Amino acid sequence: MEDSQFESIRQTEQTLPEKVAEQISQLIIENQLTSGDKLPNEFELCAQLNVGRGSVREAVKLLVARNVLEIRRGKGTYIADNPGQIDDPLGFAYYPDQIKLAMDLLEARIVIEPWIANVAAQRGTEEEIAQVHRNCLLVEEEILAGRNHLPRDKEYHTSIARCTHNLVMPKLIPIITYSVELFGTLNGNRLLSETIIGHRAIDDAIAAHDGEAAANAMHQHLVQNRIELDAIRAEQERQKTSEGGAK
Amino acid sequence: MEDSQFESIRQTEQTLPEKVAEQISQLIIENQLTSGDKLPNEFELCAQLNVGRGSVREAVKLLVARNVLEIRRGKGTYIADNPGQIDDPLGFAYYPDQIKLAMDLLEARIVIEPWIANVAAQRGTEEEIAQVHRNCLLVEEEILAGRNHLPRDKEYHTSIARCTHNLVMPKLIPIITYSVELFGTLNGNRLLSETIIGHRAIDDAIAAHDGEAAANAMHQHLVQNRIELDAIRAEQERQKTSEGGAK
Repeated sequence: MEDSQFESIRQTEQTLPEKVAEQISQLIIENQLTSGDKLPNEFELCAQLNVGRGSVREAVKLLVARNVLEIRRGKGTYIADNPGQIDDPLGFAYYPDQIKLAMDLLEARIVIEPWIANVAAQRGTEEEIAQVHRNCLLVEEEILAGRNHLPRDKEYHTSIARCTHNLVMPKLIPIITYSVELFGTLNGNRLLSETIIGHRAIDDAIAAHDGEAAANAMHQHLVQNRIELDAIRAEQERQKTSEGGAK
Repeated sequence: MEDSQFESIRQTEQTLPEKVAEQISQLIIENQLTSGDKLPNEFELCAQLNVGRGSVREAVKLLVARNVLEIRRGKGTYIADNPGQIDDPLGFAYYPDQIKLAMDLLEARIVIEPWIANVAAQRGTEEEIAQVHRNCLLVEEEILAGRNHLPRDKEYHTSIARCTHNLVMPKLIPIITYSVELFGTLNGNRLLSETIIGHRAIDDAIAAHDGEAAANAMHQHLVQNRIELDAIRAEQERQKTSEGGAK
């Protein structure tokens, strides 16, 4: 019975805080509250939802854990940036075979990102395309300074996705570029010069509003990554085999 | 100071329960615990992480809220199904313009799902393809019985994505088919016969291992949805305009 202390939080039936959390979510949606808006205070919520302060507090904690709300110390409770969106929303960190995952993420990127580059070149405004170019330079700056360029790399790809004016694509990029960081830890700096060349080719094609060239450049860039990843995987297999043989 | 009761949960600095939650996540990853495995009990966790029971309990609550853990009443704490993956992980419910969102999700599906159908036809095992066929029949059963077929519809598309043997694709389907339910609430039953015909065409092509035909059938099915959605949007615009005129 060592786990009886956990009994109060049950998954099979919805708990009261869960129900209240749903009601608060509904209230946010119905009142079209967005990032940075203030949530009604605890007393108002208790009155409106007809529940006690304890339940409201627990519900708020749940919604903070899910990045719907954020607490600003001494100021109150606000709607979070990108409400409801969490880091690693598909739980990729919990996959046992991270190399297979990296390969499959790259496969998904090869399906999605050439389309994104193509449409970005066609639909992007001059201001959006200028942002892509700035991000391209920022990635190079990080690489040339020997710093970790991967966060900037994600921003670069996300800014291209924003040029599509499709709400979903910029949200998918952080998910499918989960592999970028993973890949960074796997391959060290072998791809750095290819990254600069590949990014520039994509950037140039988008700036020229040449959709087909942008798609091809993106495809080329990602396939180059896949070739590297294949080489890393083969290397790891060899090491495993030789370690096995040495025992 | 009406919100001072929320002070204990802060977002700007990481709270102790947040830190402990991260440590527990790390422990799950390092020990390769997966869905259905039991988490070490509270006493072991306190000892291993060198923190008090209160912090462990709060951390467990956070991880339950994020669907990493689940509590089984009287049995203990277990790793959840699809750990770390929550419903609506991109927070689509919080978007103000749900019709624009539905259009953009459909655009994303038209990019991704013909590829999925093509590769499913090539890589799917006989057992996986048989599952697609069973799901196809289950959708029809629901439609013909006048019941809500949308949960089965999602399963149908997810089972096709499983045939690709790509880890990421079956995870993307629930995200990009968020529009399916939205669409259901928008369009009523107008698309039901097209759904049956479209699904059968995809199913037949996959069963015949004909990748190109599967991609075409999927494309056709989704474009049909887009035509319907365009009609609904035009209808809503007309209603808005006439309501505006009546005021």
